Amino acid sequence: MNRKLRYGMVGGGRGAFIGGAHRIAANMDGKMEMVCGAFSSDPERSKASGRDLLLPEGRCYASFADMFAAEAKLPAGERMDFVIIVTPNSMHYPPAMAALSAGFHVVCDKPMTFTVAEAKKLAKKVKETGLLFCLTHNYTGYPMVKEARTLVQSGQLGKIRRVTVEYPQGWLSSRIETSGSKQASWRTDPKQAGLTCCFGDIGSHCANLAEYITCSKITEVCAELTTFVKGRPLDDDGNSLIRFDSGARGVLWASQIAVGEENGLNIRVYGEKGAVKWRQEEPNTLIVTWTDKPTEMRRTGMGYLCNAAKNGARLPAGHPEGYLEAFGNLYRAFGDALSQVLSGKKVRETDFDYPNAHDGLRGMAFLDASVKSSKARQKWVKIQA
Amino acid sequence: MNRKLRYGMVGGGRGAFIGGAHRIAANMDGKMEMVCGAFSSDPERSKASGRDLLLPEGRCYASFADMFAAEAKLPAGERMDFVIIVTPNSMHYPPAMAALSAGFHVVCDKPMTFTVAEAKKLAKKVKETGLLFCLTHNYTGYPMVKEARTLVQSGQLGKIRRVTVEYPQGWLSSRIETSGSKQASWRTDPKQAGLTCCFGDIGSHCANLAEYITCSKITEVCAELTTFVKGRPLDDDGNSLIRFDSGARGVLWASQIAVGEENGLNIRVYGEKGAVKWRQEEPNTLIVTWTDKPTEMRRTGMGYLCNAAKNGARLPAGHPEGYLEAFGNLYRAFGDALSQVLSGKKVRETDFDYPNAHDGLRGMAFLDASVKSSKARQKWVKIQA
Amino acid sequence: MNRKLRYGMVGGGRGAFIGGAHRIAANMDGKMEMVCGAFSSDPERSKASGRDLLLPEGRCYASFADMFAAEAKLPAGERMDFVIIVTPNSMHYPPAMAALSAGFHVVCDKPMTFTVAEAKKLAKKVKETGLLFCLTHNYTGYPMVKEARTLVQSGQLGKIRRVTVEYPQGWLSSRIETSGSKQASWRTDPKQAGLTCCFGDIGSHCANLAEYITCSKITEVCAELTTFVKGRPLDDDGNSLIRFDSGARGVLWASQIAVGEENGLNIRVYGEKGAVKWRQEEPNTLIVTWTDKPTEMRRTGMGYLCNAAKNGARLPAGHPEGYLEAFGNLYRAFGDALSQVLSGKKVRETDFDYPNAHDGLRGMAFLDASVKSSKARQKWVKIQA
Amino acid sequence: MNRKLRYGMVGGGRGAFIGGAHRIAANMDGKMEMVCGAFSSDPERSKASGRDLLLPEGRCYASFADMFAAEAKLPAGERMDFVIIVTPNSMHYPPAMAALSAGFHVVCDKPMTFTVAEAKKLAKKVKETGLLFCLTHNYTGYPMVKEARTLVQSGQLGKIRRVTVEYPQGWLSSRIETSGSKQASWRTDPKQAGLTCCFGDIGSHCANLAEYITCSKITEVCAELTTFVKGRPLDDDGNSLIRFDSGARGVLWASQIAVGEENGLNIRVYGEKGAVKWRQEEPNTLIVTWTDKPTEMRRTGMGYLCNAAKNGARLPAGHPEGYLEAFGNLYRAFGDALSQVLSGKKVRETDFDYPNAHDGLRGMAFLDASVKSSKARQKWVKIQA
Repeated sequence: MNRKLRYGMVGGGRGAFIGGAHRIAANMDGKMEMVCGAFSSDPERSKASGRDLLLPEGRCYASFADMFAAEAKLPAGERMDFVIIVTPNSMHYPPAMAALSAGFHVVCDKPMTFTVAEAKKLAKKVKETGLLFCLTHNYTGYPMVKEARTLVQSGQLGKIRRVTVEYPQGWLSSRIETSGSKQASWRTDPKQAGLTCCFGDIGSHCANLAEYITCSKITEVCAELTTFVKGRPLDDDGNSLIRFDSGARGVLWASQIAVGEENGLNIRVYGEKGAVKWRQEEPNTLIVTWTDKPTEMRRTGMGYLCNAAKNGARLPAGHPEGYLEAFGNLYRAFGDALSQVLSGKKVRETDFDYPNAHDGLRGMAFLDASVKSSKARQKWVKIQA
Repeated sequence: MNRKLRYGMVGGGRGAFIGGAHRIAANMDGKMEMVCGAFSSDPERSKASGRDLLLPEGRCYASFADMFAAEAKLPAGERMDFVIIVTPNSMHYPPAMAALSAGFHVVCDKPMTFTVAEAKKLAKKVKETGLLFCLTHNYTGYPMVKEARTLVQSGQLGKIRRVTVEYPQGWLSSRIETSGSKQASWRTDPKQAGLTCCFGDIGSHCANLAEYITCSKITEVCAELTTFVKGRPLDDDGNSLIRFDSGARGVLWASQIAVGEENGLNIRVYGEKGAVKWRQEEPNTLIVTWTDKPTEMRRTGMGYLCNAAKNGARLPAGHPEGYLEAFGNLYRAFGDALSQVLSGKKVRETDFDYPNAHDGLRGMAFLDASVKSSKARQKWVKIQA
Repeated sequence: MNRKLRYGMVGGGRGAFIGGAHRIAANMDGKMEMVCGAFSSDPERSKASGRDLLLPEGRCYASFADMFAAEAKLPAGERMDFVIIVTPNSMHYPPAMAALSAGFHVVCDKPMTFTVAEAKKLAKKVKETGLLFCLTHNYTGYPMVKEARTLVQSGQLGKIRRVTVEYPQGWLSSRIETSGSKQASWRTDPKQAGLTCCFGDIGSHCANLAEYITCSKITEVCAELTTFVKGRPLDDDGNSLIRFDSGARGVLWASQIAVGEENGLNIRVYGEKGAVKWRQEEPNTLIVTWTDKPTEMRRTGMGYLCNAAKNGARLPAGHPEGYLEAFGNLYRAFGDALSQVLSGKKVRETDFDYPNAHDGLRGMAFLDASVKSSKARQKWVKIQA
Repeated sequence: MNRKLRYGMVGGGRGAFIGGAHRIAANMDGKMEMVCGAFSSDPERSKASGRDLLLPEGRCYASFADMFAAEAKLPAGERMDFVIIVTPNSMHYPPAMAALSAGFHVVCDKPMTFTVAEAKKLAKKVKETGLLFCLTHNYTGYPMVKEARTLVQSGQLGKIRRVTVEYPQGWLSSRIETSGSKQASWRTDPKQAGLTCCFGDIGSHCANLAEYITCSKITEVCAELTTFVKGRPLDDDGNSLIRFDSGARGVLWASQIAVGEENGLNIRVYGEKGAVKWRQEEPNTLIVTWTDKPTEMRRTGMGYLCNAAKNGARLPAGHPEGYLEAFGNLYRAFGDALSQVLSGKKVRETDFDYPNAHDGLRGMAFLDASVKSSKARQKWVKIQA
């Protein structure tokens, strides 16, 4: 491609958090540019947000429906190529379906939809249209996560036996949703977030990360979701025993009431011959342990890493790369796929290193099973996807 | 006391590991001395071990029965005051009961007995005789564990909500018990270890540590114990959801197949207002987090610590104190109690900071419930003790 | 400003490292865009680099002189606002002087010039023209560096007594400059790098960082620069005792032969009442110690930080921000100043939080004194600037 | 030996710190016992201290002279074998010379003497008498320090190029010597401590550690010692450039006013092919880095370590061993030598892994040169020893 890829954004206006992260991530390599947006369900707010972002007024739309309609009519050299959806969970499905129907490729925040039923329909639609769909489980974009996956994939760790994956946060340890936190209010609202708050928002990242690194699937859960903060209608903490199709077993937990924790996603994967440990808050180090050798610290940017990890770094070792760069790696992979599509090539989406609609469907099935398990008296609930 | 306290040892001869740790710990403060031992069920081996340890030949006994009989006949100024039992699990109960019957105070390694039934009988015997009984859940001897407990006890962390306690080890990730490891062979042998290997050996420390710090009791478990190494008759890995009588919830897991892990006991306790994190492998730091303040690193030996933590240190801050010093703290507390008893004072064992027979009984009940839960189809199994 | 700020780039073509970092940093907040470049002294290479970067062919210039001339003739609504200079040290001064002469604001990589004499002339020119000049000592862009500075500035640490600042790297521990490393070859070449390699390239960051955080000036050095790798004409390692105008003392060292080190810039500043410690490789944590309180870990993104630190973060706590984001903060501050200038406001450059030409001159004087000291038999050499 | 080695102690009574550490260290392996002492220059205090330590009254002496005289008259089966000297610096030489004259082997705290002249006389006396002399630079007792030394010795790191060795402490950051701290008052008193406080007390450990690990000698220093706390007659901070006989160069600094630092001795040694990093506060990890491989964390107790490191551990990996265990390793090595001597064998003291009188003399020469350098206008001062 000898031009930048053009995108529009749904959501992500003033006061939003994740929209800004998406924009920085998409723009990072200088290969994408935002050309339009429907930043808010409030048309005035949408326009104001667009102005902040230095967009021309004519491309700040009052709704995603308006945007898709108007953009579709623009000349090919001007109209957006894909849409980025960064609304609350309940508002993923409508714009995603509409975008696909209008012929636009989609990047969508996680969890993919509000319900499993929606997820199935959306995955089906993606398949039917042949359009690209990237679900931003952004943590898999970190180079050292890719190194971990390669160590499993190549058999260097041996057959995987156990996995511990955790996502502690503390920001919801008191009821801040009633005192003006926009981030907290929609996540704790069943109408916007869905059946689960904590597991939906961050437990879903745990499941995705564990499956990505282990190259296997979680098949059963035994979960207990808890609401610790009084008056909150959804879970703010959850623990689960997990089983994988490979025979591996483990523990998955997430919490939003773990006081003092910031964004502590971490994973430990133990195989027969070796193990890996990774913490999102210090993402450029992968601890690798062996049965009979000193523990290794592998580091982003080093020459000894696998290609996927090497390609995931923008800087020499020791120049910390963070959340935004990892996020940018998803956009880079999506951009690679999209460039090929726009150049008229036929691509298989699974050949590209970003989460797709099928991963999104699996994530919804995991959440569904976890919520069911939490209410069940029996020990295990199967994941259907 | 103007003399050293005198002890005999059951087990802990050549080739043993924990016996040596007990001796260093007991001797650390120069207030206790070993005067006799029945170091092995093999009389020759027992004598040889005694010689290694510079004991007079006449006090190296062929059996614990011989030892208790002979020592009981010695003049008060010579005979041992208490016995230290460091045999495999199956051989805790017989010498412990015999010692109590012979009027000797007891220090016993964990888990307390082979079965819950034995544990009940032993606890009853301790009560009846009025003798002292210390169970060496040694990890509670670390100063920063005491600081953590004080932070909970004083209410500074608020009501406790969730607990994650883990004990990863990797030394049994292959079947070393068949190739000469004495430590591995008895622990994986149901006849010597009991119903469980991994949970019995190290999961029991998790439960004890969690209860010690949170000042509450685990009431229910939902566990899955697994044997990953083929041919091994007992579990080498286990995961459990746990519930506390205080309403707290959490996760407890232990593993002996976590390749590359050494002795990774660690705990995180989250309350409404603050949280503590502690890792046995770097035991002199306690991480304390708060909702609205910088994270603290509290350190062994500092003046700002609680008294229990301050008294638990032998050196100024920055002079690392380790496993043996923590172990020594149990002996110090037990020695304090014993000195008072020997001086004719009446003491309540629960006033001293060491685990006692009741803690031992609780530990056995935890193991029993965990093994039952692992086989159950229902989700939760209650702990009866 | 209701438009993006426009820049051209000198240097930074194919095979370069730092040019790419500048571009990502400048573009990060969506407020700047590259519109032209003279990426290489080889016109063909310059054009090819421009194509890679999706620039229109007409604005890929054969030389910086061409670029300044051509851009100056463009209409105000099109022409670049400022130039970014990312060439080897010997080629900082010529384009910087030319840009200022042509009326363009300048962002320049460090060290500012090839010689102290150049630095003086350049600083004078900046003053005369009234144009903005930003020197990219990018490490001062990290939020936690700003928090450290505020802790000093506000007096919370008390009078500063000692400073240790280090910059270990290992990438030049063998003679890679003779086997194709472009980065290594110019840095070790006296004709391109100047009087010093190691101190010029990274020791200069140490000095700048120490002065930034301590709010004081290094006045004397006692340095030993060493070339460990045979055949290399410039230093690859250096140690220095340092004295500050505030009375503080300390140690500054940098090395390019510290095998296994990546980019380990770090600083420790001890005052009468408290101290701070910061490591570039884990930049989101600032360790703060006090005489009588637990050590604190202050973290990027938290609400308790000073305004400068808070404003320096783009994400909530726990979402690691790295080298590029810190670099972006310099561009953000420069952009703030430039927007005001372009809106016709009068600004004092020292009111903005980025290093300026005066800092650049001080840096050159530090290098000059260090090289002199290294050859001297007397202990101390004064810094003149 | 089929008996415990017997020692007497000079100094180390009530209120002392290091005496207690020596006793725990000496007793740790159950092979040594304290049989007598002259714990204080105040006879009553000496007796009271002896009572605390459960010694028989008849062997608590009023002075070291009394002790040596009385013990020399005891039957061989009762009298002490060696003396441990733990008095302030000014009182090392007199009891050490007296002990040697009376035929007792000596363990002495560092620095060895008050002056270089004394050190020379003492080293000469040791040689003449053929008695053993152990100087307790205890930090070399850590297993991972031995691993580091082996890595150098075996050539695995290649020729050593640079060394950074630091010893930050913060406990003297205010003038606590005037408010009752016994530890502070003698160390800051020129009559008891000698020419230097900070460098004498802890800088000497830096020099010894650096020489031990690098297997080479510091030949020149360029030092600046500073007194930051007003009214204090000796240095409380010092920085030095250092040169080794091997051609290596580096930095050595120590501070007692580094607020918030506990006992932060640490060293980094960089060779042509690899490097090691070690921190006393987390002593069971040795970081080993290489040019082209992942960084290693080598850990106390692991099977892959060198024999010296393996033998230095008392516990399996992951059971933290600390300051006292490392200290115990010096006593263990000294005990091995002494056992052989007492069994009538001829030994070369340098075959045993503990610091001896020659190391003590080198330490004094290092201090002497550092103090001279600090006052000099010339850059380098040679170390004469």
